[in-house]
Amino acid sequence: MHDPLLMDINHTVFLRDESLVIVDRRCLPSMIVEVVCNDYEAVARAIEEMVVQGAGDIAVTAGYGLYLAAIYIESHSTSKVDEAKKLLLTARERLVATRPTGFHLNALLGRMLEKIDWEQSGWSDQLLASINRTISKQQLCSELTGKWGATILEDGDCILTHCFPGAGLLFMLSQARDQKKRIQVISTETRPYLQGARLTAWSVSELEIPVTLITDNMAAYCMSCGMVTKVFTAADRIAMDGTIANKVGTFQLAIAAAYHHIPFYILGYGGPDRRCQVGKEIIIEIRDSEEVLSINGIKTTGEKVKGFYPAFDLTPPELVDAIITDRGIIAPGEVNTYWSLPAY
Amino acid sequence: MHDPLLMDINHTVFLRDESLVIVDRRCLPSMIVEVVCNDYEAVARAIEEMVVQGAGDIAVTAGYGLYLAAIYIESHSTSKVDEAKKLLLTARERLVATRPTGFHLNALLGRMLEKIDWEQSGWSDQLLASINRTISKQQLCSELTGKWGATILEDGDCILTHCFPGAGLLFMLSQARDQKKRIQVISTETRPYLQGARLTAWSVSELEIPVTLITDNMAAYCMSCGMVTKVFTAADRIAMDGTIANKVGTFQLAIAAAYHHIPFYILGYGGPDRRCQVGKEIIIEIRDSEEVLSINGIKTTGEKVKGFYPAFDLTPPELVDAIITDRGIIAPGEVNTYWSLPAY
Repeated sequence: MHDPLLMDINHTVFLRDESLVIVDRRCLPSMIVEVVCNDYEAVARAIEEMVVQGAGDIAVTAGYGLYLAAIYIESHSTSKVDEAKKLLLTARERLVATRPTGFHLNALLGRMLEKIDWEQSGWSDQLLASINRTISKQQLCSELTGKWGATILEDGDCILTHCFPGAGLLFMLSQARDQKKRIQVISTETRPYLQGARLTAWSVSELEIPVTLITDNMAAYCMSCGMVTKVFTAADRIAMDGTIANKVGTFQLAIAAAYHHIPFYILGYGGPDRRCQVGKEIIIEIRDSEEVLSINGIKTTGEKVKGFYPAFDLTPPELVDAIITDRGIIAPGEVNTYWSLPAY
Repeated sequence: MHDPLLMDINHTVFLRDESLVIVDRRCLPSMIVEVVCNDYEAVARAIEEMVVQGAGDIAVTAGYGLYLAAIYIESHSTSKVDEAKKLLLTARERLVATRPTGFHLNALLGRMLEKIDWEQSGWSDQLLASINRTISKQQLCSELTGKWGATILEDGDCILTHCFPGAGLLFMLSQARDQKKRIQVISTETRPYLQGARLTAWSVSELEIPVTLITDNMAAYCMSCGMVTKVFTAADRIAMDGTIANKVGTFQLAIAAAYHHIPFYILGYGGPDRRCQVGKEIIIEIRDSEEVLSINGIKTTGEKVKGFYPAFDLTPPELVDAIITDRGIIAPGEVNTYWSLPAY
């Protein structure tokens, strides 16, 4: 048994000959398709088109976009600091505009640019070092989140997930398995991009953990049959009031879980977004409705039908039982306690 | 503007040269594919494979299956009554076994056989007359259900639907339009067979009524945004305790609607099933899980992932605001009042 491909971002987003290679998540698991990006614009388009997904992984991928911009500056333009700054800010703006709902993207690119020592040459090297530090930190964050998550899992649990909740879910499941807890997973397919089918269910099956795929409308029925003991999803952003922004459908599952008195947990990784006071401030990305009107490029309805594609939704804290972070487990109504927990 | 194809079963299920032609609903609206059935076994397979759908339409289609069996008997076997009865009972058993959740199928075939006058020749003619009476009755039932439904609709309503709630929905919408009420519709796509996308959204758009398609996981988000004022689904069976069996996903929508205090209505057509006292008695059809593991024949997940496909779910009466029938509007907690309403 090998680790699932998606347990380490270095296996799906990496540099090769000064280009960024992204393994196209829209084609997994049936095909390994590499999308090669030679400049930040190509990276931005890949993010927009969902070649990569997940708030943390999107941030790192965008970080590489900034790196490619710095490579371009160093090989084409003069070494004037003002010019370089201007170009990198333009690149940052383009990359940040790709996906508005998550906060990791904006936060990481801001931090990367802030930390550049402009007096030192080798700006691209500095950015690359910054990316690598972020990757190590995110990997550790996923492992610790998984470790805390595993403390909640009990022998015999059958957990329901939605979309791909990131490597933390896989660490959680493998930890629980090492602790001899027998766990099963039910994964919603997560239309329209099917991340649940293509990424989560497949990755969990690679861990040799029993996993069952359902369509998004079957979750409440499974709950009513006693098939689900806990629900786990990730969060693209957690506001300071405890509101969870995550893949559309999360809210619906949280309502159904509350109705059935099934605990609903958020894999919250690095904690809430300090700059976002209330959930209402979070911009819900509305994607091209064509993505809802067809499957595999085949139109599913009549020509006069419109589509609507909100990519995320907001789940209020009262529907969440606990948020599992890298530092420990926090209450959704008091997310500021995250910073009182010891950092590692 | 012409009437939507699905407003009259005679346009999609009809006889041609002693064969039954079914317009394949899995291919609508992009293609008109005719499935030609020459015997009852072919009709049974077409019903199993969802060439036709909807409890009432399935029943009529199965009725035609019985008719084809009678044609076979008359042209091949002797005219011995015992032999003919035996063959028709075998056909009935095969046809009834195709879809266990709805009750119209079993009820109609039972009634058709009961009413045969075995002393009279022309059993197939008698069965055909029975089918035609049923079609007329169902069509009137849809019109009346739609008429009662329209009394609930208010100018400015935006109704959410799931799966294809039958011709009653289309009659309701066209009535409301004739009454100058401006109505909009949001239709879930209804995975895995996409009846919402292919049948409902398309049919509503053919009425020139604004309709928006969403994936099944977006309903609660739309509710939270104030986009939905009422929810309408059909019922494959209504138990005497008010439990609604309908396309899987109905229950999840009812929970989300209750959470948002949005009224949830059932288009209940010919009323409850007198022979089913409690919802728990209703058999939920579990279909081949392969139908969940692929889309358009393309596998969506890993080889080691299992699928689960319950085709229906049960919605308890406390989540339903009213049941709209051909005789009037009844309370979900007192469905026996249906028989105290004047029949037409």
